[in-house]
Amino acid sequence: MNSTLPTTKMANAIRALAMDAVQKANSGHPGMPMGMAEIAVALWSGHYSHNPANPKWINRDRFLLSNGHGSMLHYALLHLSGYAVTMDDIKAFRQMHSKTPGHPEVDVTPGVETTTGPLGQGIANAVGMALSEYLLASQFNKPGFDIVDHHTYAFVGDGCLMEGISHEVCALAGTLGLKKLIALYDDNGISIDGKVEGWFTDDTPKRFEAYGWNVIRAVDGHDVAAVSAAIAAAKTADKPTLICCKTIIGKGSPNLQGGDKVHGAALGDKEIAAVREYIGWDAAPFEMPADVYAAWDAKAAGAKREGDWSTLFAAYSAQFPAEAAELSRRMLGELPASFDATLAAAVAACVEKKENIATRKASQNAIQALAPSLPEFLGGSADLTGSNLTNWKECVALRSGQPGNHVNYGVREFGMSAIMNGVTLHGGFIPFGATFLTFSDYSRNALRMAALMKLRSIFVFTHDSIGLGEDGPTHQSVEHISSMRLIPHLDNWRPCDTVESAVSWGAAVKRKDGPSTLIFSRQNLPYQERTAQQIADIARGGYVLQDAADAKAILIATGSEVELAVAAAAALAAEGIAVRVVSMPSTDVYDRQDAAYQAGVLSKGLPRVAIEAGVSAFWYKYVGLEGAVVGIDTFGESAPAGVLFKHFGFTVDNVVAKVKSVLLA
Amino acid sequence: MNSTLPTTKMANAIRALAMDAVQKANSGHPGMPMGMAEIAVALWSGHYSHNPANPKWINRDRFLLSNGHGSMLHYALLHLSGYAVTMDDIKAFRQMHSKTPGHPEVDVTPGVETTTGPLGQGIANAVGMALSEYLLASQFNKPGFDIVDHHTYAFVGDGCLMEGISHEVCALAGTLGLKKLIALYDDNGISIDGKVEGWFTDDTPKRFEAYGWNVIRAVDGHDVAAVSAAIAAAKTADKPTLICCKTIIGKGSPNLQGGDKVHGAALGDKEIAAVREYIGWDAAPFEMPADVYAAWDAKAAGAKREGDWSTLFAAYSAQFPAEAAELSRRMLGELPASFDATLAAAVAACVEKKENIATRKASQNAIQALAPSLPEFLGGSADLTGSNLTNWKECVALRSGQPGNHVNYGVREFGMSAIMNGVTLHGGFIPFGATFLTFSDYSRNALRMAALMKLRSIFVFTHDSIGLGEDGPTHQSVEHISSMRLIPHLDNWRPCDTVESAVSWGAAVKRKDGPSTLIFSRQNLPYQERTAQQIADIARGGYVLQDAADAKAILIATGSEVELAVAAAAALAAEGIAVRVVSMPSTDVYDRQDAAYQAGVLSKGLPRVAIEAGVSAFWYKYVGLEGAVVGIDTFGESAPAGVLFKHFGFTVDNVVAKVKSVLLA
Repeated sequence: MNSTLPTTKMANAIRALAMDAVQKANSGHPGMPMGMAEIAVALWSGHYSHNPANPKWINRDRFLLSNGHGSMLHYALLHLSGYAVTMDDIKAFRQMHSKTPGHPEVDVTPGVETTTGPLGQGIANAVGMALSEYLLASQFNKPGFDIVDHHTYAFVGDGCLMEGISHEVCALAGTLGLKKLIALYDDNGISIDGKVEGWFTDDTPKRFEAYGWNVIRAVDGHDVAAVSAAIAAAKTADKPTLICCKTIIGKGSPNLQGGDKVHGAALGDKEIAAVREYIGWDAAPFEMPADVYAAWDAKAAGAKREGDWSTLFAAYSAQFPAEAAELSRRMLGELPASFDATLAAAVAACVEKKENIATRKASQNAIQALAPSLPEFLGGSADLTGSNLTNWKECVALRSGQPGNHVNYGVREFGMSAIMNGVTLHGGFIPFGATFLTFSDYSRNALRMAALMKLRSIFVFTHDSIGLGEDGPTHQSVEHISSMRLIPHLDNWRPCDTVESAVSWGAAVKRKDGPSTLIFSRQNLPYQERTAQQIADIARGGYVLQDAADAKAILIATGSEVELAVAAAAALAAEGIAVRVVSMPSTDVYDRQDAAYQAGVLSKGLPRVAIEAGVSAFWYKYVGLEGAVVGIDTFGESAPAGVLFKHFGFTVDNVVAKVKSVLLA
Repeated sequence: MNSTLPTTKMANAIRALAMDAVQKANSGHPGMPMGMAEIAVALWSGHYSHNPANPKWINRDRFLLSNGHGSMLHYALLHLSGYAVTMDDIKAFRQMHSKTPGHPEVDVTPGVETTTGPLGQGIANAVGMALSEYLLASQFNKPGFDIVDHHTYAFVGDGCLMEGISHEVCALAGTLGLKKLIALYDDNGISIDGKVEGWFTDDTPKRFEAYGWNVIRAVDGHDVAAVSAAIAAAKTADKPTLICCKTIIGKGSPNLQGGDKVHGAALGDKEIAAVREYIGWDAAPFEMPADVYAAWDAKAAGAKREGDWSTLFAAYSAQFPAEAAELSRRMLGELPASFDATLAAAVAACVEKKENIATRKASQNAIQALAPSLPEFLGGSADLTGSNLTNWKECVALRSGQPGNHVNYGVREFGMSAIMNGVTLHGGFIPFGATFLTFSDYSRNALRMAALMKLRSIFVFTHDSIGLGEDGPTHQSVEHISSMRLIPHLDNWRPCDTVESAVSWGAAVKRKDGPSTLIFSRQNLPYQERTAQQIADIARGGYVLQDAADAKAILIATGSEVELAVAAAAALAAEGIAVRVVSMPSTDVYDRQDAAYQAGVLSKGLPRVAIEAGVSAFWYKYVGLEGAVVGIDTFGESAPAGVLFKHFGFTVDNVVAKVKSVLLA
């Protein structure tokens, strides 16, 4: 401890801020901050290495609340220790555009490392951060220069530990031996429905030992010294550590502590007065005694910490200038200067080869072309590497004690995706991870979180439709592409050939402020000829692939159905009906183009038919009530792909008929 | 064992059928059937209580493959033991409309209890089946009459155990002490990426002990007697049992067994010949020696088993005729004869009370009205009971050793949903379970599976939009309603008041052949006046709530936005612009109405504006390119609900302006 103030008073300062802010908002969760106050004191006063003046210091410890509903705990800590979170910000808890939203949001509040609330994903992000730290350290540290050397601390509650994702990511963290990951478990025995003993009786320490974690059992979560000692022990372990802290939810509330009523609602004026009396807190709401501020103030210590590190980094930079520059570049998320040229060469190679291959293979070719000059690539797959093709020649499989740049995530789609988000949040890497498109369902909320947080996580989904054939309806995506298009700020790409696949990869890598999905076929798709301008226009999300003078209609297609659109156009031309073919690999990106460009692609007045081997509903946005969609509004079937496409109407005859049906009289 | 044939030969029959069928299809997964063949012999010859002639016998043991890619194992067992699965069916493995699709599909193949493939959900279904058995037995059995008394057996692989959902459901099964659940773990150390030691090092027995399971360790999975003894021991345990069977994947394939190449591809003619040689299997492909059929034949034993049970049930029926009739009714999934009257009374009560309450509260009122006459109701919540309001006055909380009809599922959304599917599959119950709408993401693939399997699972989602306010964007659904509408065969309901809420509940309960989502608000919504015809039309999914002579446009709204549509219509009327208001609680159901009805609701030629506090893209299907949508195409914010609705343009002024913008010149 770095203060002479009793730790009880430091903890009570958190309690006061949390209960008063929740009361003022008449909304929020006082129980967790009041119950974890001493744990926070132990961590932040004794161990947490950070600098309030620079929340982006690259070697800071990462701290996150997986139980994000306890956001006021974090806001209180940030305020008290000297971050740019003022008392006015605390007073604006849960109000529009404040720095103190209901759940912690990265980029909204200085010092908040990730957005949490959906339970279990915070600890997954923490695993990703610890993984990044391990890998970055392995790549950049030199003898005497531990430039990257920090811990990742996560607070977790019963809810996080009940969630399935906690199993996925903690099992993997144990397997990989991520020893700088330290989780502090708020074992208060209460969840929203009441005492957890009715529905959650896991022997959690035993469970985590089964994952290969170091488990510190039965720590009194209200004994600052005991928690601090546990953290100190955890820092010396050679495994990730779970510190099990026995706590009382809402501790300090004489009439509500230890029960579920203190979890998620304001205490009320009367109980707040009772708390003040009970814990001996005299200060008025939103007033903080000077000695409390003094005890919590981490500015000087933080400045010294970063200062010491900067001195070390300066020496490192002198001795290893290339590495220093590279680390800085990667932590800023900037691409190598050569990237555009590398990408252009990859596209040119596709044009030259004109290969008719599955787009998942085209994707692997793109990865192969980009990876050698992108050391920040961190690939992976949820146990489908040979099917997803997200590995490349030189990639090294990550193993315990063996750094690598390809992660076998195991059959853990949701965990993979949320770990990738943590990797991105940490900085230094561009992660991509893959599974079959249908299992995007499993990871869906992590895609949403990536979009909400504006993270460059790249989600690769192969086997993208009935085109996967015999595995049948459980494995055949029908609704997934459209349903991912509904997630705000997520860019979805479904390329039709090698060139579009390479361009999609380029777009995903260059999109610094948001996630992308890259959706690929299992089956071979033909190469499409294009002009240079058409190739340039792929990056606009939608473009005219084949035009016709006096076009009477527009065919819009994506991915594997572009081939069909082209064939149908030829059949129509043979009948004297000219149509335009628009390839639309990304509706999200197309929607951001200016009106003039869009008018040249989906020109007004021309009837439209969209073709996609998926649900039709989404496409009416582009074809309107007078247009038509060739889609699938039922589940698929188990049969060879060719049989299925025919069965579901993905035939030239059917498309031709649809076009005729929409032609203006 | 009930046969004199060596068990090795019985197991090799499975191997032969599996490898030959996969080879013929040139697609499929031979590794699991070949590796679990002896385990299957042990279970099916010695323990599995079933009747091939009647796959729907209500007291049969349930058997399911959570590792569903090993479907040929099940098909082989069904064929050999005498189900209506012929050798021609086996030959048609993975072909269009065959009885032997790529992954097991319920209702396609007699004897298949659930559709599996998406890993981890099979064991979740099994938990649901075991739960149903426990509850049904508690409700119907009488001294001397164990009418409901069977086991549930699940095969699980490494993939299932890596998936997070396995944590959720097995932890709950342990807590609830579902002792008739027996899982057989195919511990072969291989997953698709290779040896699992690189990514899956859990001490699985210890993990399951931490859940409170009975664990039988280190059983030789190729020793039929050892496996059989383990099953016998499991049947006497007072906890769910995990039998850990050490196996060799693809056993019998001299050059491929024990490796990942045997998992998911045909062996090839050469290796198949080598297998025949190696295991001493002389029969040609798709020919089966008579002694093998004789050894496997379960028809006589099955007929006797069901016959004995029928005798018992006849005696039970004589002594407890009401209970017998009720059990039969419930297992058929038929509603009580009084149901329509009960529902009508519930609706009438809403009309009489005209309450302005949150639809989540209206939902609870509907549950309260229906539950007393629906003993098959099995409610629950993923630790949000007091928020979701899925409990009712008389409900009894399920606990270990204490049957009930309300399940505290814990913070396990995906597990809850897949368990509910298992409950529905078993028969005897109509399960409903709830969470916040945004967490439908977590359970999404279970919703899909319910739709694919045509199950009457009722998924309740409350806190349905930015209307939940301060909890912020992580908790505010924006894309979820529309994205669930994209799942084929899923009916989604978003009612606007008490009456629509009651009707939605009625529709969900009456929909015997498919799942429904019921989507409710956190905040209060005003009661809407309707004629009797309008009330009747709610069940059609969309109807005219307010019409106007000479209407110039149509406002379409759902849920909380119906209020806004009505207010905007009034404002427009005041300006002399007559509009029609359509309430559209279920687009899915509306889409199934006949064209004449639809023409009376969304009449051709009238411009349309849709209003929904969610993404806009879906609504162009109804408003077309010339219409407009008042929606939200970004994430929400943390602030009070009123502030948010205004901020995002859900105001009368904005709707009025949109209507004017679409009015035909």
